Amino acid sequence: MTSQDMLATVDLGSNSFRLQICHHQNGQLKVVDSIKEMVRFAAGLDEHKRLDEASQQRALDCLARFGERLRGLAPQQVRAVATNTFRVAKNIGAFMPRAEAALGFPIDIIAGREEARLIYTGVVHTLPPNGERMLVVDIGGGSTEFVIGRDLQPSITESLNLGCVTYSMRFFPKGKIDAKTFQAAVNQARAEIQRIGSNLKHTGWDFAVGTSGSARSIRDVIEAANGNGDDGITLAHMQAIAHKIIAAGSTKKAKLNGLKPDRLEVFSGSLAVMIGVFTELGIRTMQVTDAALRDGVFYDMIGRRLDDDMRNQTVAEFQNRYQVDKTQAAQVAQLADMCLMDLARQYPDAEVAVWRQYVRWAAMLHEIGLSIAHTGYHKHAAYILDQADMPGFSRKEQHILSTLVLGHRGDLRKMSDFVNEPMLWLAILALRLAALFYRARQPLALPPLSSLQYLARQKQFVLTLEQSWLDDNPLTASALAQESALWQKIGQRLQLRQP
Amino acid sequence: MTSQDMLATVDLGSNSFRLQICHHQNGQLKVVDSIKEMVRFAAGLDEHKRLDEASQQRALDCLARFGERLRGLAPQQVRAVATNTFRVAKNIGAFMPRAEAALGFPIDIIAGREEARLIYTGVVHTLPPNGERMLVVDIGGGSTEFVIGRDLQPSITESLNLGCVTYSMRFFPKGKIDAKTFQAAVNQARAEIQRIGSNLKHTGWDFAVGTSGSARSIRDVIEAANGNGDDGITLAHMQAIAHKIIAAGSTKKAKLNGLKPDRLEVFSGSLAVMIGVFTELGIRTMQVTDAALRDGVFYDMIGRRLDDDMRNQTVAEFQNRYQVDKTQAAQVAQLADMCLMDLARQYPDAEVAVWRQYVRWAAMLHEIGLSIAHTGYHKHAAYILDQADMPGFSRKEQHILSTLVLGHRGDLRKMSDFVNEPMLWLAILALRLAALFYRARQPLALPPLSSLQYLARQKQFVLTLEQSWLDDNPLTASALAQESALWQKIGQRLQLRQP
Repeated sequence: MTSQDMLATVDLGSNSFRLQICHHQNGQLKVVDSIKEMVRFAAGLDEHKRLDEASQQRALDCLARFGERLRGLAPQQVRAVATNTFRVAKNIGAFMPRAEAALGFPIDIIAGREEARLIYTGVVHTLPPNGERMLVVDIGGGSTEFVIGRDLQPSITESLNLGCVTYSMRFFPKGKIDAKTFQAAVNQARAEIQRIGSNLKHTGWDFAVGTSGSARSIRDVIEAANGNGDDGITLAHMQAIAHKIIAAGSTKKAKLNGLKPDRLEVFSGSLAVMIGVFTELGIRTMQVTDAALRDGVFYDMIGRRLDDDMRNQTVAEFQNRYQVDKTQAAQVAQLADMCLMDLARQYPDAEVAVWRQYVRWAAMLHEIGLSIAHTGYHKHAAYILDQADMPGFSRKEQHILSTLVLGHRGDLRKMSDFVNEPMLWLAILALRLAALFYRARQPLALPPLSSLQYLARQKQFVLTLEQSWLDDNPLTASALAQESALWQKIGQRLQLRQP
Repeated sequence: MTSQDMLATVDLGSNSFRLQICHHQNGQLKVVDSIKEMVRFAAGLDEHKRLDEASQQRALDCLARFGERLRGLAPQQVRAVATNTFRVAKNIGAFMPRAEAALGFPIDIIAGREEARLIYTGVVHTLPPNGERMLVVDIGGGSTEFVIGRDLQPSITESLNLGCVTYSMRFFPKGKIDAKTFQAAVNQARAEIQRIGSNLKHTGWDFAVGTSGSARSIRDVIEAANGNGDDGITLAHMQAIAHKIIAAGSTKKAKLNGLKPDRLEVFSGSLAVMIGVFTELGIRTMQVTDAALRDGVFYDMIGRRLDDDMRNQTVAEFQNRYQVDKTQAAQVAQLADMCLMDLARQYPDAEVAVWRQYVRWAAMLHEIGLSIAHTGYHKHAAYILDQADMPGFSRKEQHILSTLVLGHRGDLRKMSDFVNEPMLWLAILALRLAALFYRARQPLALPPLSSLQYLARQKQFVLTLEQSWLDDNPLTASALAQESALWQKIGQRLQLRQP
């Protein structure tokens, strides 16, 4: 890791300023440092859209701190972008030279549409393209970006001057919130969105994704109130939160679980704008992703071509990073895939296809924990899969992989808490059997009459294997007998039969 | 990872048979598989020291299972050693060809002294040589080995025919235990040990180490009863356990916390022999290590030369494994070391020397968690340091490193639960300041008048830095102010002063 391999982005938003430093090698990015400061730059705009001196000073102090961190980097290693407040402030011309001097690098004020394009670039690096049309909504401090795109290409990029800081200040300047002013904020947001709504609706989308701190804070509050089961944003959930805030009289008094202190001041603005977005565009549910403008800026800097599926690249990179025995991983993956196809015969093809991918990735990664220790390596792997930054995978997908890998060996009782999806049980059995048969890490020849079935009605797995083969492979025979006993302990049956 | 880089050991003990497979590259071993079967081979010896047919069959079945796992490995990749029961059984000659055929590899019956030497080799790979004389005691199923050595060289190696399986069977054949038979077992053990005791005591030792499942099971039961504070074995603790077993009438009825089910049958034998060892040799306290015969066999196979301190090799290997930025690690280590020396001026040199090592290793490894994710990387590093196999480090040392790394950034309140050692606080501050000053990963010039002190009476840290330097480094200035606030939160003072 040398400083030549470092890339830095500075994202000067209307709510927060962020610095992020990545180590870049062979097209792979690894975040090594990040700093976020809640500058609330947009709050410094007066009624004439001029930035007051105090907010300029806050911004300059922050830029000087970022500048210290960037010292020693070459200009081509750093990209600083500035968004809405920089776009709208009348006195920005006098401010920019001071800002660039404090940072020590040039700062690009980017247009709203360019901001939208970069956000989309960030999102498609974390959500794999699936051929569906996606609507991305990014509610920032001073502007909100809307993008519709399919796979790698955005087809509509829009930016509107409404944001969580500006709306919070304009409608709830002292934090007081009543039904009337809240509705006024929502209506004002709707009126703005209406300008682009028909164009967006005309193009249409298959699913909606929210980015930025606004969407995340709304998702967090919904999750805290409703448990982890439901990980999307809906209008009904938002309205319940709004009622709570209005009843309490302010966001602070409403004491919302899950809301981070640094979002407290701007949450009402976020909520009003998001309700406006949902209502005006008729959105039913919205996923939230951690991708952000800065990710798009990074990917833009390295000019990476997107593979068909980012997730395959990530799995390959993780195999390298954790020194996985790839031959072993590949043979376990292949057998696990065959087992899953046998077990899942009565399930719909589309569902099986999704789970075949999970099983294959889990098999490719099931030994990454060996890099920590052999004892409990499945637990270490599960820890890594839950905690790691895995470009292309959603958090939920990472947790599925983590669950599969945790369940691929040892006692099964640990799984009973969190496995309620029938396909997940089949996937776990497929992976366990593949790992068990390939324990010797040698090419394997199973007898021609062997087979694997799942009898759903009897809730029973049946594995057919020739006795003579078992006699020749006593370790595997004993492991299969133990396997059968482990399933019995959780009230499921794995029966071993002769052909 | 190819099968040519694999090494396997088979350890045929009197209590358990074990197979372990390691991946070997550049002198570094990584366990990839291990199988343990409680064969209790010694229990098959009749009064004429002949192995009965049932125990031979148990052993052969196990060897055939191991043989399946070893298929495809070349003879030079596998070493199988057999110990006491193989040494004493009269009918072993007829059994060996069957055993080797089942395993598919030759089996060496090793002498007691060679067993002792190999155990010692295993131990010195996990406990760093410190110039002190060490007594190693390994109570096996059928024999107990004693070694005294200093650093790499064992000077006395002894082996006696007393073990946890043979003593359990001989004195407590039906599991019933009363005061009289227990004392008889202890006395018999003492009588055996007396034969070598004077020679051992004449040579002398500075500290005693217990290996093998017997020592571990006694340690586990003591820990479960007394919490984690005390991690050694003492005579008083063992006598308390013996009283409990005698009062209950059997180990099973005594329901000892911490005792694994597979040690239940042989625990009384382990305890009687260990009490005999302590009493006869006058041992006060004994550490327990996980090192074992099989580790010695591995290190013997690869013929690795021991470095002065195995721990340095391990730290270097971990830096590679987790792709650490070594320049950054080295500069943080150097500054942390200087800080610790400044802070710890009033502490004894020997104590400071030990902590300087910990701080240096922690600094070398403080970024290993970045390999998982930037978010919470100090937590990921702490997880790895607590869980990993780290040759040369004791578990306690790993936990110290893990604690230092966990504490090197972020809130300090998480530390208050488990940091009661004053030097650890100084070490944490030293590491935090070094990481804070080197955040930019650039060479650093601190002003000549800067200094760091710990005023023990006032319980206050004082950092002196020129204002002009702080003005030039506003990110560091702001981080230091935050640092001061974080110490305040846990009731400690870090004062920033001008020279």
